[in-house]
Amino acid sequence: MKAFAMLGIGKTGWIEKERPKCGPLDAICRPVALAPCTSDVHTVWEGALGNRHNMILGHESVGEVVEAGSLVKDFKPGDRVIVPAITPDWNSLEAQAGYSMHSGGMLAGWKFSNFKDGVFSEYFHVNDADGNLALLPEELDPGTACMLADMVPTGFHGVELADLQFGDDVVVIGIGPVGLMSVAAAALRGAARLFAVGSRPNCIQIAKEYGATDIIDYHKGDIADQIMEKTGGKGVDRIVIAGGDADTFAQAIRMLKPGGKIGNVNYLGEGDFIKIPRIEWGCGMGHKFIAGGLMPGGRLRMEKLTSLVTNGRLDPGKLITHRFDGLGKVEDALMLMKDKPRDLIKPVVVIK
Amino acid sequence: MKAFAMLGIGKTGWIEKERPKCGPLDAICRPVALAPCTSDVHTVWEGALGNRHNMILGHESVGEVVEAGSLVKDFKPGDRVIVPAITPDWNSLEAQAGYSMHSGGMLAGWKFSNFKDGVFSEYFHVNDADGNLALLPEELDPGTACMLADMVPTGFHGVELADLQFGDDVVVIGIGPVGLMSVAAAALRGAARLFAVGSRPNCIQIAKEYGATDIIDYHKGDIADQIMEKTGGKGVDRIVIAGGDADTFAQAIRMLKPGGKIGNVNYLGEGDFIKIPRIEWGCGMGHKFIAGGLMPGGRLRMEKLTSLVTNGRLDPGKLITHRFDGLGKVEDALMLMKDKPRDLIKPVVVIK
Amino acid sequence: MKAFAMLGIGKTGWIEKERPKCGPLDAICRPVALAPCTSDVHTVWEGALGNRHNMILGHESVGEVVEAGSLVKDFKPGDRVIVPAITPDWNSLEAQAGYSMHSGGMLAGWKFSNFKDGVFSEYFHVNDADGNLALLPEELDPGTACMLADMVPTGFHGVELADLQFGDDVVVIGIGPVGLMSVAAAALRGAARLFAVGSRPNCIQIAKEYGATDIIDYHKGDIADQIMEKTGGKGVDRIVIAGGDADTFAQAIRMLKPGGKIGNVNYLGEGDFIKIPRIEWGCGMGHKFIAGGLMPGGRLRMEKLTSLVTNGRLDPGKLITHRFDGLGKVEDALMLMKDKPRDLIKPVVVIK
Amino acid sequence: MKAFAMLGIGKTGWIEKERPKCGPLDAICRPVALAPCTSDVHTVWEGALGNRHNMILGHESVGEVVEAGSLVKDFKPGDRVIVPAITPDWNSLEAQAGYSMHSGGMLAGWKFSNFKDGVFSEYFHVNDADGNLALLPEELDPGTACMLADMVPTGFHGVELADLQFGDDVVVIGIGPVGLMSVAAAALRGAARLFAVGSRPNCIQIAKEYGATDIIDYHKGDIADQIMEKTGGKGVDRIVIAGGDADTFAQAIRMLKPGGKIGNVNYLGEGDFIKIPRIEWGCGMGHKFIAGGLMPGGRLRMEKLTSLVTNGRLDPGKLITHRFDGLGKVEDALMLMKDKPRDLIKPVVVIK
Repeated sequence: MKAFAMLGIGKTGWIEKERPKCGPLDAICRPVALAPCTSDVHTVWEGALGNRHNMILGHESVGEVVEAGSLVKDFKPGDRVIVPAITPDWNSLEAQAGYSMHSGGMLAGWKFSNFKDGVFSEYFHVNDADGNLALLPEELDPGTACMLADMVPTGFHGVELADLQFGDDVVVIGIGPVGLMSVAAAALRGAARLFAVGSRPNCIQIAKEYGATDIIDYHKGDIADQIMEKTGGKGVDRIVIAGGDADTFAQAIRMLKPGGKIGNVNYLGEGDFIKIPRIEWGCGMGHKFIAGGLMPGGRLRMEKLTSLVTNGRLDPGKLITHRFDGLGKVEDALMLMKDKPRDLIKPVVVIK
Repeated sequence: MKAFAMLGIGKTGWIEKERPKCGPLDAICRPVALAPCTSDVHTVWEGALGNRHNMILGHESVGEVVEAGSLVKDFKPGDRVIVPAITPDWNSLEAQAGYSMHSGGMLAGWKFSNFKDGVFSEYFHVNDADGNLALLPEELDPGTACMLADMVPTGFHGVELADLQFGDDVVVIGIGPVGLMSVAAAALRGAARLFAVGSRPNCIQIAKEYGATDIIDYHKGDIADQIMEKTGGKGVDRIVIAGGDADTFAQAIRMLKPGGKIGNVNYLGEGDFIKIPRIEWGCGMGHKFIAGGLMPGGRLRMEKLTSLVTNGRLDPGKLITHRFDGLGKVEDALMLMKDKPRDLIKPVVVIK
Repeated sequence: MKAFAMLGIGKTGWIEKERPKCGPLDAICRPVALAPCTSDVHTVWEGALGNRHNMILGHESVGEVVEAGSLVKDFKPGDRVIVPAITPDWNSLEAQAGYSMHSGGMLAGWKFSNFKDGVFSEYFHVNDADGNLALLPEELDPGTACMLADMVPTGFHGVELADLQFGDDVVVIGIGPVGLMSVAAAALRGAARLFAVGSRPNCIQIAKEYGATDIIDYHKGDIADQIMEKTGGKGVDRIVIAGGDADTFAQAIRMLKPGGKIGNVNYLGEGDFIKIPRIEWGCGMGHKFIAGGLMPGGRLRMEKLTSLVTNGRLDPGKLITHRFDGLGKVEDALMLMKDKPRDLIKPVVVIK
Repeated sequence: MKAFAMLGIGKTGWIEKERPKCGPLDAICRPVALAPCTSDVHTVWEGALGNRHNMILGHESVGEVVEAGSLVKDFKPGDRVIVPAITPDWNSLEAQAGYSMHSGGMLAGWKFSNFKDGVFSEYFHVNDADGNLALLPEELDPGTACMLADMVPTGFHGVELADLQFGDDVVVIGIGPVGLMSVAAAALRGAARLFAVGSRPNCIQIAKEYGATDIIDYHKGDIADQIMEKTGGKGVDRIVIAGGDADTFAQAIRMLKPGGKIGNVNYLGEGDFIKIPRIEWGCGMGHKFIAGGLMPGGRLRMEKLTSLVTNGRLDPGKLITHRFDGLGKVEDALMLMKDKPRDLIKPVVVIK
């Protein structure tokens, strides 16, 4: 089969590879919609996972089941499915403890284009089909649904980690596609005032549509200073970090109230340490909670988030700024993610 | 001073009473907006609190501070304030345990027109002004703000008790003013499918505007049967009870999934027992959680909910179907609540 | 193979049955230790699950793996294992939602002697071996370990459902083997005063050894009255129900503080309704939380509870009052459970 | 009145000061038992709070009420009381949000020897007597009870912040008096294996008595390496930090499982940043939760923890290695804390 792969650090290309085998619990799918992710860019051009050769890229997809394992009960060839980026081993100790995304080891629920080939291919393999696939509702556009694989669950998880309560003042740092989903999630979870930190005009526009009440531009000064000024020196109740770098945490701690909570869903690709400022963290005693985690995946999560879309609570389709047609265009879509033109939020490739 | 009071069971009237004294932590307010509550009707015509003589009625108000105690730091005469129906003693053991509404005993955070005179009066007393009052934002209509005293916090608390999560299927039973606020709260907390149980056309209309996706009319058959049919036999994740009677719980248990949660904010005025059906409750082992509680009051709660309104997340003003002008009209407003004409949701009285 | 079975309601006997087949994820075990449970008595003599014919009884066991499915990774023939009474399908939607004991439907994680044959047999079948078995530590007596299959996790779950906090005053209602484990769990979770409700001298003795500070004998008057008197009218913070009947809840509600929590792990076998007294439940607004649930099973749970035993925190061996030798004696052990002699707490059968 | 005070950085001495005034909600107490704290040492010799002149030291005490304000309901002169180190303003917004220790600002619930004079004096002032004092049970030794002011609630809070669950493997870093209370709390909360990190023989002996199963000596190598080796590379579920410095967090993160939680109660007095190692923190996505907070104070907290002592669950008296007699000896006790002889855990001064 034909597939688009990482050939080595900094190199991508089309390769021929054998179609994956289907174990008794698994499914083999063909892609119906695909989206590249910033993680793919990190993987190839920054070597975030180390060097890999001929590893098929991609972890965001909607697919069609072409083969289902002998023990699969709920899916059959022809079913169109949403495939989460994270596909846990549900009987693992970590999943039993409530952290399925770490099944088999920290971050090991992330299998696509990491521990096995990804989805940018004529066919791809899904472990535990019953536990990890969700039916695509007929009325849902596959491109829009493809946002449910990673952008929606990651953005929403930031808000879950921050444990947002009714009437909280919230900051979302970063308004790329994940951050925009955090903005939508914060509004949908009961935030009152909702600061979104970013600067690109199209993202600002969408952030407002998703519910941001205030935009903070980091070009106009330190964001913590701006937030403290806008809140009369009080700071905020909750912060979702969906962008920035290791230094962002120091700003977040500074503008957070005691008793406040930070939820990080930004992949921190550089630096040895995240630095928590001692004094602003109350010398260790300020009850400023810090959480960060990989998105929960699996079937139930996909079904629940899909239900938000089909019930009209959320339109993740607004993220899509570029649409491509046909598997062959996945390369163009990835290059777009790499080059990040100013009008890009998220590209998607639809395969008929 | 002039006040509208319960004279005895089934009897109301205007009385003269001495203006209340202001302790060092207290405030004396004059009313700016008042609303009668179904509880006032229960109190007078059903004797829900036992017999009371010349007890001033009312617990929903926006006021203006006319006197502040010597130890009050944050409020002064002339401040316009939202006054919660529940005004806890914040240093009580119950408040320290997180249940301020039961400060001093079960339900004892409810003081207005219960342990002391209510707010339907030229002047009324508020205990612990710093802990219980919230400034009325200038841009907020006092009538609308009056909904923040009880309707909003009670309706929202139902959703909090039910511990709603992103993508949950939810039923709200009852779409009077409290239930409508539960509908709004459920949508604002991330419900997916949202069933509202009711039958009055104006309430149905508002329920849809607040986010209900399906309306269940109890005149058309058992509501649990209807919900089970509409969910393909699966039931729902969360149920908020904001209407009905003691039998409503049996229906709720029946249509709730294992692992599901019920949040009750309906005052149960009759019957000896709430009956939980044994089999449907999994013989005691179904993990169908039952919670019921009085609204949290106090200053922080008022500020947070007010912030939802001023940030455009919630418009409780839609509840108001009848507006009256002047303290003297509080009697008409109460009679309206008693008579419940079909076009009534909530009346409010504004005093200049 | 030889097995001890329910022949019909009220009838038990030894039967011959085919050895169960081992699927790719499963294990076949032979019993090393077995214990009958009150549930077995309910099943046979009260027809709690309806009529069943030739259904092998028993769900409490320690076993030795004799066959492991082709996809099983962590267990092999010869391994001695603790087998939980509840063996979920870990990839089910219910398990993904955190309620694995209801995988496939309410209570459906309970498979042994319910949806399939039980463990009182020369061989028995365990679904999802990797997800549901736990290695028996060498130093642990198999009879003692057999208490980990159901008595320990059920008793401990009552305390988890009641959400006990440091310094809480707690009542455990019922001090049969499950209730005694709730007493031990309450002490091990930070209870301060710990009331145990029961009357049999040997159980009282063990309850004190497990940490009860006060014994309440229901023969000496209503237990709620006794508790209210002993707490100066304040009531308690937490209640675990591990005995009694549907009426027990009314007493529990009465002696619970507002903000208090009830955790039920008693199987309620009779009556149409559990009755919650309206007034004492604060007319639906008292924040007296009611939870009841089947024990969580599976591998992680077994490993964690086993670790409490091997680290010297808990000795469930104290429950065992009668020991038998050889599979053939499982009938005697069950009859003992049925007859409940006064000196019985829990019998166990060890098979070499 | 006579009092022992910080005269300036590095200087202490006895001073004469006017007896504090008693507001309507307050109490004036005379000390019955006093203990110096490492914080007093930081305050004086490290200038942790900046320079202060003639500020009376001390925040750990048991007292006798000598005067009660006009609005105080539950305490009267002659009552012997436990006085928490943290005495919140209970009607503050922070307390209403559940973080009473930050009432009025981060850490501002800590008033003694910080925002006002401390307790090493003939008389001291307690704000909100009803909300902050707890009666000393007659059977309880005042010296032992003095440990309830700070050592017990701080140590226990570490375990609360780490959210320990039944059967968790736990590390407590630091076994000074606070760490020892964390060890006791971890055992009392259901830890299985319990590693205590320390090296002083008397502390090790007490740690074992309080429930530690393994002792880790940091002189014998990196503690994270030792823990990883002892857990077969798995790491632990929960970590309480009650000692060490800013670098301790890096070790903690390294030995924590994904899904694990850290609870810090160590006052971090030095360094600009706490450093979280990026890779071991899962690049921000490892679900390794970090919490740190000042002890909760107030009356309910004192009553609950006292109840653990009077019910025989905890003996904080084991911490006391040195006893002094008379207010005048508080200077000797403080110097002992400063010099930290090897046989010291905690000194106490009892005043008849």
